Amino acid sequence: MSMKAAIVGAAGFAGIELTRILLAHPSFDLAVITSNELAGTPLATEYPGFTGASDLVFSAHDNPELDTCDVVFLAVPHTAALAMAPRHVARGALVVDLSADFRLKDPAVYEQWYKTPHTEPELLAEAAFGLPELFGEGLAQAAEKRATGEGVLVGCAGCYPTATSLAAAPAIRLGLVAPEVPIVVDAISGVTGAGKKCTPRTHFCFADENFEAYGVATHRHTPEIEQILGIDGRLVFTPHLAPANRGLLSTVNLPLAQDASTDVAEIIDAYQKFYVVSSFVTVLGEGQMPKTTSVVGTNRAHIGLAVNKPARMLIAIGAIDNLGKGAASQAVQCANIVCGLPETAGLEGFALPVV
Amino acid sequence: MSMKAAIVGAAGFAGIELTRILLAHPSFDLAVITSNELAGTPLATEYPGFTGASDLVFSAHDNPELDTCDVVFLAVPHTAALAMAPRHVARGALVVDLSADFRLKDPAVYEQWYKTPHTEPELLAEAAFGLPELFGEGLAQAAEKRATGEGVLVGCAGCYPTATSLAAAPAIRLGLVAPEVPIVVDAISGVTGAGKKCTPRTHFCFADENFEAYGVATHRHTPEIEQILGIDGRLVFTPHLAPANRGLLSTVNLPLAQDASTDVAEIIDAYQKFYVVSSFVTVLGEGQMPKTTSVVGTNRAHIGLAVNKPARMLIAIGAIDNLGKGAASQAVQCANIVCGLPETAGLEGFALPVV
Amino acid sequence: MSMKAAIVGAAGFAGIELTRILLAHPSFDLAVITSNELAGTPLATEYPGFTGASDLVFSAHDNPELDTCDVVFLAVPHTAALAMAPRHVARGALVVDLSADFRLKDPAVYEQWYKTPHTEPELLAEAAFGLPELFGEGLAQAAEKRATGEGVLVGCAGCYPTATSLAAAPAIRLGLVAPEVPIVVDAISGVTGAGKKCTPRTHFCFADENFEAYGVATHRHTPEIEQILGIDGRLVFTPHLAPANRGLLSTVNLPLAQDASTDVAEIIDAYQKFYVVSSFVTVLGEGQMPKTTSVVGTNRAHIGLAVNKPARMLIAIGAIDNLGKGAASQAVQCANIVCGLPETAGLEGFALPVV
Amino acid sequence: MSMKAAIVGAAGFAGIELTRILLAHPSFDLAVITSNELAGTPLATEYPGFTGASDLVFSAHDNPELDTCDVVFLAVPHTAALAMAPRHVARGALVVDLSADFRLKDPAVYEQWYKTPHTEPELLAEAAFGLPELFGEGLAQAAEKRATGEGVLVGCAGCYPTATSLAAAPAIRLGLVAPEVPIVVDAISGVTGAGKKCTPRTHFCFADENFEAYGVATHRHTPEIEQILGIDGRLVFTPHLAPANRGLLSTVNLPLAQDASTDVAEIIDAYQKFYVVSSFVTVLGEGQMPKTTSVVGTNRAHIGLAVNKPARMLIAIGAIDNLGKGAASQAVQCANIVCGLPETAGLEGFALPVV
Repeated sequence: MSMKAAIVGAAGFAGIELTRILLAHPSFDLAVITSNELAGTPLATEYPGFTGASDLVFSAHDNPELDTCDVVFLAVPHTAALAMAPRHVARGALVVDLSADFRLKDPAVYEQWYKTPHTEPELLAEAAFGLPELFGEGLAQAAEKRATGEGVLVGCAGCYPTATSLAAAPAIRLGLVAPEVPIVVDAISGVTGAGKKCTPRTHFCFADENFEAYGVATHRHTPEIEQILGIDGRLVFTPHLAPANRGLLSTVNLPLAQDASTDVAEIIDAYQKFYVVSSFVTVLGEGQMPKTTSVVGTNRAHIGLAVNKPARMLIAIGAIDNLGKGAASQAVQCANIVCGLPETAGLEGFALPVV
Repeated sequence: MSMKAAIVGAAGFAGIELTRILLAHPSFDLAVITSNELAGTPLATEYPGFTGASDLVFSAHDNPELDTCDVVFLAVPHTAALAMAPRHVARGALVVDLSADFRLKDPAVYEQWYKTPHTEPELLAEAAFGLPELFGEGLAQAAEKRATGEGVLVGCAGCYPTATSLAAAPAIRLGLVAPEVPIVVDAISGVTGAGKKCTPRTHFCFADENFEAYGVATHRHTPEIEQILGIDGRLVFTPHLAPANRGLLSTVNLPLAQDASTDVAEIIDAYQKFYVVSSFVTVLGEGQMPKTTSVVGTNRAHIGLAVNKPARMLIAIGAIDNLGKGAASQAVQCANIVCGLPETAGLEGFALPVV
Repeated sequence: MSMKAAIVGAAGFAGIELTRILLAHPSFDLAVITSNELAGTPLATEYPGFTGASDLVFSAHDNPELDTCDVVFLAVPHTAALAMAPRHVARGALVVDLSADFRLKDPAVYEQWYKTPHTEPELLAEAAFGLPELFGEGLAQAAEKRATGEGVLVGCAGCYPTATSLAAAPAIRLGLVAPEVPIVVDAISGVTGAGKKCTPRTHFCFADENFEAYGVATHRHTPEIEQILGIDGRLVFTPHLAPANRGLLSTVNLPLAQDASTDVAEIIDAYQKFYVVSSFVTVLGEGQMPKTTSVVGTNRAHIGLAVNKPARMLIAIGAIDNLGKGAASQAVQCANIVCGLPETAGLEGFALPVV
Repeated sequence: MSMKAAIVGAAGFAGIELTRILLAHPSFDLAVITSNELAGTPLATEYPGFTGASDLVFSAHDNPELDTCDVVFLAVPHTAALAMAPRHVARGALVVDLSADFRLKDPAVYEQWYKTPHTEPELLAEAAFGLPELFGEGLAQAAEKRATGEGVLVGCAGCYPTATSLAAAPAIRLGLVAPEVPIVVDAISGVTGAGKKCTPRTHFCFADENFEAYGVATHRHTPEIEQILGIDGRLVFTPHLAPANRGLLSTVNLPLAQDASTDVAEIIDAYQKFYVVSSFVTVLGEGQMPKTTSVVGTNRAHIGLAVNKPARMLIAIGAIDNLGKGAASQAVQCANIVCGLPETAGLEGFALPVV
């Protein structure tokens, strides 16, 4: 039985990747794609790779057909989702929000980092957090609720938080990490992370051959990572941009607790057990480190581990596709779970062996 | 009902793309992947993107299990296929050869360009040519033969010949092109076209940011294109390398016949009719030109058309994925046809909207 | 003795490359750089690679100090140069125009292609054409005129015309090329050729990994190439974009005249004699083809030659830096000549061996 | 007065960049370039960008003319320099070694990390350390010695140590950094850092679009950085590879001492004073972060600074060209100093404004 799905904000990079996934999904029937800027433009005109794929045409965000959709994905800028989500939840739909609007559990923290008050604190309180490998219980509860026909909201994790947390959470939850000391995360994203807007930052001639840090000590994913990992005030997060389209690599430096083993084989073993039931996370063997090209175009995450013994530091490195597990495919994974489908429905693909 | 399939030479770029496609194919069950160099190495060790995809391990080319496979794909260097194909055809298998060994219909031309005699002229004579949109009849006959349980050989078209011929053939077959004058083809390939071997040409630091012509007036795809299009001695073919992984663009300059119309809308209309039944070829509208990123990772071809009226020249530009429609997915398309499957089985995907 | 120089439109890609060259030039003293958009912004703020290089600040195009400059380079869009050049020529300055405004000798052709009347036909008539290797005489005359203190205007050749003409002109001028038949030119440019403006075409995520043709049968460099080579109505010119920053490669297909030799060694010899006095053009030996990375960042041009004997076609391939010999450094070369300096002043550098 | 110079190992990436710099150097006359592999090959054949630049031909490492050179640059793999340096120092030459053989002051540490005993401990003891901004005194002493006609050896700093130490040393030397706690350094290099050898790691099709960590917890630059900064056993160093040719960015996380200010403006001010006499190091203003493209092709270093106040962490980010300030141009800077030339001789260039 197929469910009618819509993507609000389908023309941006996360939205269009969602479009690609949903067009091939066995249970979601993509009926509406919206973009205020491109309303009236056929999908294949804006993204010619879809030629022959579908006759969908972008419509405006106020397309009334949205109200007939069982599942509404919101791939709009933050604050826009705040305004859109409540109506669809109220009418009993599943809303999967890819923006930052329903991620930060404390409305005050949201206001501090996004410079605008959170207008839906009640909805925020009941939203499930969309990072299934670490917050499966909340999604399971949402699925139960959904099964009764109620509206449900999922606020999906961001790209850097996803890669960083998948790499860090097992060690932290297993008590391997020293309390109170800073955790340094240096992450690298492809240029799709900077969005579809044409700016000097995304101009080929400035991005090509260049790499640089940005948002140093000020990136908005900081409080989200701290919330997920429970490390308030301890995160030192520096994102970088590399001259590639997709991919995200997060190098997490975790100071080992005093009584923790520095044996990397043991730690790898613990991580593999932690993720043993996960369909999408692979913990690599000793000496292996993840490549972003291994996961681009997929919902997969690869994690590599090493220990610096003199400094007693665990280095946990996670690789994902920033548009995949970091955005679009993770949203689909969440929707699958909440709708009672196999978690992997529509997400079975592997990366091109040569990108 | 699934058929058992093997890839001989699965570790190279065409072979590994075949592997990716066959692992997800609904009717072929990939049982054997061979590589003499990597015999004993798990697939996922060499290509870590396959982690979790399959437990396949590369075996040597003489793996006896090959003889139990219904379909054998040969992705080996030329001359190697000459030695391998006969046995499998003789035992009643479908052999799909991606090398150049069974493409050139005249053994003398083969010997002239490949500097080695063709040792299987009889098999060559009965081989079907693997470019379904232009040589569908031969493949249909092969399918009939195959349905009786006989062995069948398909010699697939090369990458430049595929893109070039898809762009040029309609005009030539419809009589729009002047006879006897040269046809200039300037084509561009991504670096995967230069193969997996590590050489100065494929070294990142020499290939990156560079573009250049190679094989000028000497490229071995010249006689193949001339054969397909029936333009012996008239082809001026210059391939170029661009700093991208995949993709192939062929710009074909076709002098219009004296009585041919120079109206591009008419020509586009004729092309669209020519390809109306084709699942994979799209003729773009007036003013549109193909992008390689629209077809990368797929079996699709996009064709753009323009006319230079003062010079009475039709410019027909074809874009494909050199590893897809130019190699692996075209081989699967041929196998689908010969096996009586839907032509599109396992080949429905679209390109990533943002590569 | 140093001359005071200005660049009008210094913030674009050609203008900023001019800035780099002039800051290190032994005889030109760069005193004014203008940009209406960036007026008031320090050079190093917009282009941080200049940090420490100079205290220059962009001023508006109407900066009165322009009138005190001996040499004024115009790197502004077409029609803007039409308005700016006359005043400076009238006051006795050397004006070197990088735009298309003073290239096409026939004002009617200018109007046809640029959709605006040419308002300075007299100045156009007396402008020297800025492509020294092929139009040295005009520049020599301009130098004589300049030596008397008169104002002088140079209209520099465009990027595609420069590479194409350097590759084609020797064969044409030496009578090797068949008359009346079309000449096919397929050229490739790096993305800087699309300019500094942030557009979907220059967005990293659309340009990266992609190659495509553009301006097919409509590119404005067509009449300029036809004028330079004297091949009216015979040029079939298709430019392509490749995912690199700089570099331009032009593959020129020249049908050999009936009595011309097809011996490539002879032709190479003739080309080498043609360019024997040229400081910047190198004709490569048999079997060698030019790489764009060999000339990026320089004023050099590399030319490779091959013959397709059955089709009697000479393939002449020229590589330049589109921002160098195709724009900024060629403008400096012209200025050097007109000012009586060594042609190579400030232009001695070689490409990075590894870009 | 010009000095005769030689490069042993000129065909590798550091060696060829040295070649480029020395060919344009005002005081060094490059007379010998060696490469055992390419002995007999003209420079311009291997690196066609040098066409017309010079008639130099690679000779073997045992070229006797080496013994007539005043300055010998060694760009050979480690252990090879151990064997070559002593003879030239003994005969009174200046030897500038770009390998790791004379960097680590403790021969035991060398043996531990390079798995071979250090055979020249005495020469090691007297070698000057080639990182002028931080070890100027040693180079000044070497210059005095050299002025008396004695042989002198400089062991140049590595690429990661240079960028990392330029970013970290001011804070450490000024007492801003907490003692005894780990210092996390995550650095990114372009692919030239992986060398000229053709390997899967340097294959375009595996490097393009990919980023990954390598040598995690095992990279040989670890003890060198610890030595320079005096932070034995405290460095957590993870290098990464990004899909660019050149450039190196080091993100250094420095825990601030208990009494240190967290005011970034103060820290920037202190850094700017620290480097006030440096010709090549620029400390960027508040809110600015370095781009690798700003320094590629030059001897310059750009440093950006930010503070994470909750975690009391100073983030110091340094950008250099790994082949420039990280190798070839730094070697020339050292040679300039030791030879009594202006530090900047031959190194005045700025990066291409658009790479």
